[in-house]
Amino acid sequence: MGAPFPFSAIVGQDEMKLAILIAAVEPAIGGVLVLGDRGTGKSTAVRALAALLPPMRAVQGCRYHCDPAGACEDCQRLHSGRRVKTETRPVPVVDLPLGASEDRVVGALDLERALSQGIKVFEPGLLARAHRGFLYIDEVNLLEDHLVDLLIDVAASGENVVEREGLSVRHPARFVLVGSGNPEEGELRPQLLDRFGLSVEVRTPTEIAQRVEVVRRRDAFERDPEAFAAQWAKPDAKVRRQILQARERLTTVAVGDAALYRASELCMAVGSDGLRGELTLMRAARALAALQGAEAVDDAHLRQIAAPALRHRLRRNPLDDTGSSERIARAVAELWA
Amino acid sequence: MGAPFPFSAIVGQDEMKLAILIAAVEPAIGGVLVLGDRGTGKSTAVRALAALLPPMRAVQGCRYHCDPAGACEDCQRLHSGRRVKTETRPVPVVDLPLGASEDRVVGALDLERALSQGIKVFEPGLLARAHRGFLYIDEVNLLEDHLVDLLIDVAASGENVVEREGLSVRHPARFVLVGSGNPEEGELRPQLLDRFGLSVEVRTPTEIAQRVEVVRRRDAFERDPEAFAAQWAKPDAKVRRQILQARERLTTVAVGDAALYRASELCMAVGSDGLRGELTLMRAARALAALQGAEAVDDAHLRQIAAPALRHRLRRNPLDDTGSSERIARAVAELWA
Amino acid sequence: MGAPFPFSAIVGQDEMKLAILIAAVEPAIGGVLVLGDRGTGKSTAVRALAALLPPMRAVQGCRYHCDPAGACEDCQRLHSGRRVKTETRPVPVVDLPLGASEDRVVGALDLERALSQGIKVFEPGLLARAHRGFLYIDEVNLLEDHLVDLLIDVAASGENVVEREGLSVRHPARFVLVGSGNPEEGELRPQLLDRFGLSVEVRTPTEIAQRVEVVRRRDAFERDPEAFAAQWAKPDAKVRRQILQARERLTTVAVGDAALYRASELCMAVGSDGLRGELTLMRAARALAALQGAEAVDDAHLRQIAAPALRHRLRRNPLDDTGSSERIARAVAELWA
Amino acid sequence: MGAPFPFSAIVGQDEMKLAILIAAVEPAIGGVLVLGDRGTGKSTAVRALAALLPPMRAVQGCRYHCDPAGACEDCQRLHSGRRVKTETRPVPVVDLPLGASEDRVVGALDLERALSQGIKVFEPGLLARAHRGFLYIDEVNLLEDHLVDLLIDVAASGENVVEREGLSVRHPARFVLVGSGNPEEGELRPQLLDRFGLSVEVRTPTEIAQRVEVVRRRDAFERDPEAFAAQWAKPDAKVRRQILQARERLTTVAVGDAALYRASELCMAVGSDGLRGELTLMRAARALAALQGAEAVDDAHLRQIAAPALRHRLRRNPLDDTGSSERIARAVAELWA
Amino acid sequence: MGAPFPFSAIVGQDEMKLAILIAAVEPAIGGVLVLGDRGTGKSTAVRALAALLPPMRAVQGCRYHCDPAGACEDCQRLHSGRRVKTETRPVPVVDLPLGASEDRVVGALDLERALSQGIKVFEPGLLARAHRGFLYIDEVNLLEDHLVDLLIDVAASGENVVEREGLSVRHPARFVLVGSGNPEEGELRPQLLDRFGLSVEVRTPTEIAQRVEVVRRRDAFERDPEAFAAQWAKPDAKVRRQILQARERLTTVAVGDAALYRASELCMAVGSDGLRGELTLMRAARALAALQGAEAVDDAHLRQIAAPALRHRLRRNPLDDTGSSERIARAVAELWA
Amino acid sequence: MGAPFPFSAIVGQDEMKLAILIAAVEPAIGGVLVLGDRGTGKSTAVRALAALLPPMRAVQGCRYHCDPAGACEDCQRLHSGRRVKTETRPVPVVDLPLGASEDRVVGALDLERALSQGIKVFEPGLLARAHRGFLYIDEVNLLEDHLVDLLIDVAASGENVVEREGLSVRHPARFVLVGSGNPEEGELRPQLLDRFGLSVEVRTPTEIAQRVEVVRRRDAFERDPEAFAAQWAKPDAKVRRQILQARERLTTVAVGDAALYRASELCMAVGSDGLRGELTLMRAARALAALQGAEAVDDAHLRQIAAPALRHRLRRNPLDDTGSSERIARAVAELWA
Repeated sequence: MGAPFPFSAIVGQDEMKLAILIAAVEPAIGGVLVLGDRGTGKSTAVRALAALLPPMRAVQGCRYHCDPAGACEDCQRLHSGRRVKTETRPVPVVDLPLGASEDRVVGALDLERALSQGIKVFEPGLLARAHRGFLYIDEVNLLEDHLVDLLIDVAASGENVVEREGLSVRHPARFVLVGSGNPEEGELRPQLLDRFGLSVEVRTPTEIAQRVEVVRRRDAFERDPEAFAAQWAKPDAKVRRQILQARERLTTVAVGDAALYRASELCMAVGSDGLRGELTLMRAARALAALQGAEAVDDAHLRQIAAPALRHRLRRNPLDDTGSSERIARAVAELWA
Repeated sequence: MGAPFPFSAIVGQDEMKLAILIAAVEPAIGGVLVLGDRGTGKSTAVRALAALLPPMRAVQGCRYHCDPAGACEDCQRLHSGRRVKTETRPVPVVDLPLGASEDRVVGALDLERALSQGIKVFEPGLLARAHRGFLYIDEVNLLEDHLVDLLIDVAASGENVVEREGLSVRHPARFVLVGSGNPEEGELRPQLLDRFGLSVEVRTPTEIAQRVEVVRRRDAFERDPEAFAAQWAKPDAKVRRQILQARERLTTVAVGDAALYRASELCMAVGSDGLRGELTLMRAARALAALQGAEAVDDAHLRQIAAPALRHRLRRNPLDDTGSSERIARAVAELWA
Repeated sequence: MGAPFPFSAIVGQDEMKLAILIAAVEPAIGGVLVLGDRGTGKSTAVRALAALLPPMRAVQGCRYHCDPAGACEDCQRLHSGRRVKTETRPVPVVDLPLGASEDRVVGALDLERALSQGIKVFEPGLLARAHRGFLYIDEVNLLEDHLVDLLIDVAASGENVVEREGLSVRHPARFVLVGSGNPEEGELRPQLLDRFGLSVEVRTPTEIAQRVEVVRRRDAFERDPEAFAAQWAKPDAKVRRQILQARERLTTVAVGDAALYRASELCMAVGSDGLRGELTLMRAARALAALQGAEAVDDAHLRQIAAPALRHRLRRNPLDDTGSSERIARAVAELWA
Repeated sequence: MGAPFPFSAIVGQDEMKLAILIAAVEPAIGGVLVLGDRGTGKSTAVRALAALLPPMRAVQGCRYHCDPAGACEDCQRLHSGRRVKTETRPVPVVDLPLGASEDRVVGALDLERALSQGIKVFEPGLLARAHRGFLYIDEVNLLEDHLVDLLIDVAASGENVVEREGLSVRHPARFVLVGSGNPEEGELRPQLLDRFGLSVEVRTPTEIAQRVEVVRRRDAFERDPEAFAAQWAKPDAKVRRQILQARERLTTVAVGDAALYRASELCMAVGSDGLRGELTLMRAARALAALQGAEAVDDAHLRQIAAPALRHRLRRNPLDDTGSSERIARAVAELWA
Repeated sequence: MGAPFPFSAIVGQDEMKLAILIAAVEPAIGGVLVLGDRGTGKSTAVRALAALLPPMRAVQGCRYHCDPAGACEDCQRLHSGRRVKTETRPVPVVDLPLGASEDRVVGALDLERALSQGIKVFEPGLLARAHRGFLYIDEVNLLEDHLVDLLIDVAASGENVVEREGLSVRHPARFVLVGSGNPEEGELRPQLLDRFGLSVEVRTPTEIAQRVEVVRRRDAFERDPEAFAAQWAKPDAKVRRQILQARERLTTVAVGDAALYRASELCMAVGSDGLRGELTLMRAARALAALQGAEAVDDAHLRQIAAPALRHRLRRNPLDDTGSSERIARAVAELWA
Repeated sequence: MGAPFPFSAIVGQDEMKLAILIAAVEPAIGGVLVLGDRGTGKSTAVRALAALLPPMRAVQGCRYHCDPAGACEDCQRLHSGRRVKTETRPVPVVDLPLGASEDRVVGALDLERALSQGIKVFEPGLLARAHRGFLYIDEVNLLEDHLVDLLIDVAASGENVVEREGLSVRHPARFVLVGSGNPEEGELRPQLLDRFGLSVEVRTPTEIAQRVEVVRRRDAFERDPEAFAAQWAKPDAKVRRQILQARERLTTVAVGDAALYRASELCMAVGSDGLRGELTLMRAARALAALQGAEAVDDAHLRQIAAPALRHRLRRNPLDDTGSSERIARAVAELWA
């Protein structure tokens, strides 16, 4: 598939890029939902970010390519009484192709071994392959609801539980779920919306110079990917360092009482259900602070990330109501007035 | 999956916690239905309670991990002419994962042995695994009706009867069924409602300090589960003792004629169908008395448990009618006026 | 499953108890449909009655546990040239569990023997198991129509005809079909109604002393089933004798021309379709006379059984029309005025 | 299943009995559709008529129990170079049980031989079993349309053509199709109606003495079938002779031009589609003449059979229009005025 | 199935007979759609025509019974390096029986050989069997759309392409498709209509003498098919000669520019879509000229065949609009005025 | 299937022919959608163009007939340590036959080898076969949506990703997708429209001389394909040279800033979504310039290709709005005014 488009060469779309960066720093954020027109480079950004992350170390022979400290079934078997070997692998970006069957997503009985050797062995699916990386679903609104539910459940719990075909398996499946959708092509159920951590809106640029720049870069990239990548190697390296430093800094970033109260006040003001809004806002603000090298979350972090963290949790189908981003902006303005 | 969140560290949600305690003391109560917003810690509470119960003794080799006095098919085979061995196991909490197939729920023909050895053996399912513990169904309103019917039937009878694939099996399956649902996301049929013993409503707290406390505890827990658990070990031990004592005391708690008449009067006053309301009210009040160390059921017990026992049995779709809890409150007030 | 609740200890519900007694005396009556609220002890009554019947003698080795005079395929094979052995078995009460597959109901190819020995053998289903006893369907209105049709057909003909999977089998399947349903939870097609012999309505008692008595007996039973059963052993024995004597007396009870004309007049007056009303009324009155030790059917018998025999056969969806029982009462009053 | 109810003991229902007699004399008539209330003895009449027919001679070893002059595949194999043996068999009456699968109706691959011997052999179905007899479908309106289409097609062509599961088989399947239905329980498509040869309407008798007589005979029959059959042996024997003589006489009964013109005029007058009306009317009148011992069809024959032959072919859904029989009566009256 | 009804003995229905003759002379015409009442002898005509055609020579051993000059896969295998043998076979008329499965229509994997010998062999279906003959679909409007699409596609291309079950097969399948339908029983999609070459309408005759004649001939035929066939042998032989001569003459019949312009003008005048109208009209007129022994197509040929060639291609659902034949007649009249 | 109709002999339909030429020069254009009446030679044009292209060199033994520089799984295996052999093959045109199953389209487990050798091997499907050629879908609006989605996805990515039946395969699948559809026969979802690179409209010619010419050439071709092909050999050779030269020239054709700005201005003026419009317009204009031997894209190229590149991307269901082509024409006129 050749080299991906460089992350830094993406024109505009700052909100989307920030949301993906935050999810890369703090995967517990719960996935990113990208809403907007076709042809605005949604999958490009995910693939680009994954490509600039450093490769990861994984237990050799573990079907879930766990971290050397992993404790999955495979790792336990491999660990028993000896040192496990590790290897280096690129961060996975797994696409859910159209028409993927549920058994390939969650994994299934390995029919080959069942038939030839008469034993029941689990054959991992796409969820296993996405472990420690990204799972990208294009047009999440075209997917069957039960598959989306399942994906979000696994993304939330970090674990894939399979109870079918006589199998009873659990394995780690921690990944950043990135879904894209076009609200004009089939609405998303409010319940699904709420389960994504962050949501961002992308639009076709309306400024002509920006449009031309997109076309020009894309054409340049397609004509000579290597040359184009070389041109953007430096800015990409800078982003990589930023992410790695933010990950290290994350556990030390403080979230004071003032920030917690601010987050709760904001959620109550805009009327988001449950407490998922607060939790997400707090975590996203912390990751943002880490990305910016700050030592504590302050109001600016909360303000910057409020819309992506809350926009899709407002009552009364916020997506159809063009005012959802504005309602948050207004509440932010009033709180910090 | 690491240690669960401590039961005592759950902020608020007293009605839900009480209902789960009662079901743990008197499983014949018929399950608990938790209704309310997402993100309010429904599954947390079940898992937390199960974790603080002492481990149970079970017959070794019995596929249903029966009590040493068990009389299931496996136990009978194991008992024949010798002393059975027992072992210690944690109280099971079984989740019904999204997409679980019916055969994994009720159990099915063991295909591996059918194909390799040509014999028909039953392979127990989730219902067997939940025996003597908890079965948790998240979003019971998203489950297919026939599966919910089946689960409630088994929970009620304490026995799983399988008639399929040429199998004809019965095995014990006594568990506390806990279902959660959000009435806004798909209504529950009145008939299903009625079959749950108790129903409780949970809501996102509206007091800001409480909200911040929830977020703070959850964050603390996620950052260092062990330290957090140590902090709450004492209160949890107290709850464990309360349950164990209540179970012992349960058979001796008296339910006098006055209490029985009160219960019937209340049910007639609020207009609940059938006699399941009275039976549940009586049993729940008895379990509550046992939890409180009382020797007999008195009016206070009936009053306290009236709403969870009856709320979901009122005619005319009580869930949509925000007044169902109030109707019970009014009837209680008038009766004891 | 332990001892069932004693038949005589059932509080009230006289019409239902009488209908089940009549069906036990005269199985040709065509089944009993019990309509009414949940939690009114419908299945309890069936199980209780079956338990008090004396065990039956059955041909040993016959898969249909035929009467020693049986002539089914199995019996013929066993009879050929030698005396068959018999054994004693309790009267079966077979439940149709939710989710039972059609092949388990009617029976199916024995896959185990088909696969291992390459021969086609019929494996009897629930219909075979119910032969000579009771088949209980809870919530007959939730069952698929074609399954209900099939059950009623078999109950009517006393024979199960299987034409599937390359099998072509006939075996006896005479049982009393008892269906229960709640007309509020899904209407029954008029055609199905008509095919049940008798229909009875049960309601939650509205008298408070009776409600308390139900709860008290149920609680006493659940706390110590044996002691409770001992308390009611005598009345139950009396019912058993009454049934056995009625069965013997049945062939000698006379149905005079006057009674036949009365029955026809009544059916024409209330406007029941076909002649099934007359046939059922005549048979039910005869069974009632036998239960009461009378030598001939008289007007009192017809009057007492008119409502259960005709109520569900009136034109214009009688169940929705609360007046169907009253219409019969009025017609009875006018005829015998 | 014991002896059937005697044909002659059926009370009333003359039109239905005549139609079945005609179909027994002239199977090319195309089946009989019996419309009317439940419980009016529709299947009784078919079974009764088949029982009084003399047994038939059939080729031994032919899976289709062909006539000794048969030329089916089996017969050809058996005939090759030697005299075939014949045997005596009762005239078959085959019921289409509810839930019969299509493969059992038309026949299917013999799985047993396919799996054990690896060869493709056709296993005949119900259509084969009904060859030379009767196929009875109760509630033809509840059957799936494509199955009814298929049955009528086979009945019309006298041949069952199977193209499935890699099989390509043709075998004779000449039978009298008798369908019963209740127009109130699901309408019959006009196209299906038209494909039945004759249609008759049965109703619950409205005269009280007749109703009582039905109940009385049915009860007498059920109490002692043999004694009852003996009572009606003579009238049944007379019917048998009548049929046999009519069959012989059939080829010699003349249908003159006058009769043909009358038939056409009648069909045009009532407005039946196509020419199936004329053909049926002509054939039915000829069979009726044969039953009555006449040498030629005259107006009286046409008049008597006009309603059953044409009633279901009138335009504008004749069944809902209670006037369809009357329209024919009026047209008959005008033509022969 | 005995001898078919003689083609020449069909009373009336001239348009239908002409269309079938034309299709027999020029199969590239694209099939004939016969619309009209049931019981008007549609399948009779097809079967009758096929029966009077001379048998065809076919390659022995070729599963598609190709012409000796055939070049299908089988023929190529047989031809390789030696002379193929040929045999004589009747022109096939293949019925699509109701309920035929798609795999039997297009052909499928030969399961017998797949299972026993482990090889993938194609087992030809009905399309293969119809090669070089007729494929008759009764009630084309009751067939599933995708099956009709498929049949028409194959008929148009003369080739059956199978891509399923791991098979990838092409074989010749040139046949005259004759479909019959009753527009009152389920409309035909305009797109399907357009794909048939010719369409004809048949009606029940309204003249009484003609109706009587139909009934009389049908009865005579059924009573003694051989005698009847002998009676019509001469006229049938004449039709056969006419077809054979027309086939030879076909390549030499000229279609001048005047005729081509006339055809185009007519199509534009009536407003038929695409150019299929012109092509069909030209080909049908040429075949008609060949049947009449003419050397060139003239206006009379175009006029005579205009309605069958265009009637079903007019815009605005021509079938419901009784004026479609009249619109063509009017356009013809104006053009040739 | 014999020689195809020569490309140059197609009468009219210039827009369609140009679009197919452009796609042959620049396959990244994303497919061509041909909309219009039946019988206008849509599939003829595709087949004709493919036939005039020179054969391609392919790696021998590669299941995807890759280019000698190919790097697919098969090629990598073949390349390892030795020189691969190549062979010459015609450019493939693959039809999606009606009723093709998904597994034959995307490829599937090779059941033959799975069953006989117990190994999982991928058996390539139609997508593999179309690699480096054309995939033609007739009536794309009749295909199931998910299959169309899948085809377009593969066409866009040039790669087929299969995740089913335990297979996990990727192989190159670069082809020009040509879909045809009739908007009157079932609308195309706007999302699908947008994913085709170019769309063209074809209509039945309304000029009589042109119609006659189409019929005349088609008839001449069908009567003697070879002679007809010889007649058009020269013009076809010229088209072939034009394509080959354009392909070589393509990488050197310049697209200046002026052209890029023009393209963006035009897209914004007509209001097409996303940036796919600009990209397509730029690429199509470049291919057109290459076909015309120009060295840079100028306004004339953009103007000529604007309608096919943008027509199907306008908001508000442009297909129903007959003005979509006009809106583009107007915008073009204004921009270049």
